Amino acid sequence: MIMPTKEKTLDDLFHETLKDIYFTEKALVKALPRMAKAADCDELREAFENHLKETEDQVDRLEQVFKLIDKPARAKTCEAIKGLTDEAKEVMKDFKGTHALDAGLLSSAQAVEHYEISRYGTLKAWASELGLDKAVRLLDATLQEEKNADRLLTEIAESQVNRRAEAA
Amino acid sequence: MIMPTKEKTLDDLFHETLKDIYFTEKALVKALPRMAKAADCDELREAFENHLKETEDQVDRLEQVFKLIDKPARAKTCEAIKGLTDEAKEVMKDFKGTHALDAGLLSSAQAVEHYEISRYGTLKAWASELGLDKAVRLLDATLQEEKNADRLLTEIAESQVNRRAEAA
Repeated sequence: MIMPTKEKTLDDLFHETLKDIYFTEKALVKALPRMAKAADCDELREAFENHLKETEDQVDRLEQVFKLIDKPARAKTCEAIKGLTDEAKEVMKDFKGTHALDAGLLSSAQAVEHYEISRYGTLKAWASELGLDKAVRLLDATLQEEKNADRLLTEIAESQVNRRAEAA
Repeated sequence: MIMPTKEKTLDDLFHETLKDIYFTEKALVKALPRMAKAADCDELREAFENHLKETEDQVDRLEQVFKLIDKPARAKTCEAIKGLTDEAKEVMKDFKGTHALDAGLLSSAQAVEHYEISRYGTLKAWASELGLDKAVRLLDATLQEEKNADRLLTEIAESQVNRRAEAA
């Protein structure tokens, strides 16, 4: 007997994207300590260290969302984030010991934050449409942290520019 | 005679990131017509078609920036964007003919927009630091277009949600 193929729905999209961002957060738990170690200025190193703690909480929140939809917490390889973390590794290697190192690290970190802002914004909207109110609150908590992290990185980038301008 | 290795600078970072976003825009010139063709609702199809025209102008602006720094316009493969356009292809295949197709296309498109917003923000800040005033204006023109594109996609996503809610 041939079973009809079940039409894919918004629930499937939500689940797939959840696995994607779970991969992302787990990849960042590994990448952020390396980026903190490489950072030249104290402000940037501390920002990476603090964001690592937030990222660990974000992994935990995602595991709660998997539970809410009765699915095991599983990651699905996200090529975009692999590309961005590989880029950060390349910057750490090519710009080691140069004045431009932190600018390169900031650029990679902000690209990652924007990726996350986009994904959490989408997931929050879908959770709301699917009536998953508790998931909306969990996803929104992380979304606000990612927006704050991006703002902090912009502030650090701007203060670096000012510092370099003053030193010139 | 061994020549000392020249220290890499912000000029190098600017040039590398310019090649990266040039790859991105050229990849989107190819991807957007496919996404427009796949889109289910007219609003989303038109948004993709209009953004294709903007993207062609953005390629042209990047070529002007390459000229300003006396470099040939060359693209460098960006794995992050390859990942995101591959994801869009997967969505078009897996969700073809379903009600969730446009939601998936919107998600991929917004991830791309956020990538670009991050990169143009960084490039604009660096161009300013490097005293490339004409490049600042060109990069800012594109940055504003990308922010508007992202806002429009959010509006379409919200109107879809409302439409579906009304239909329920």
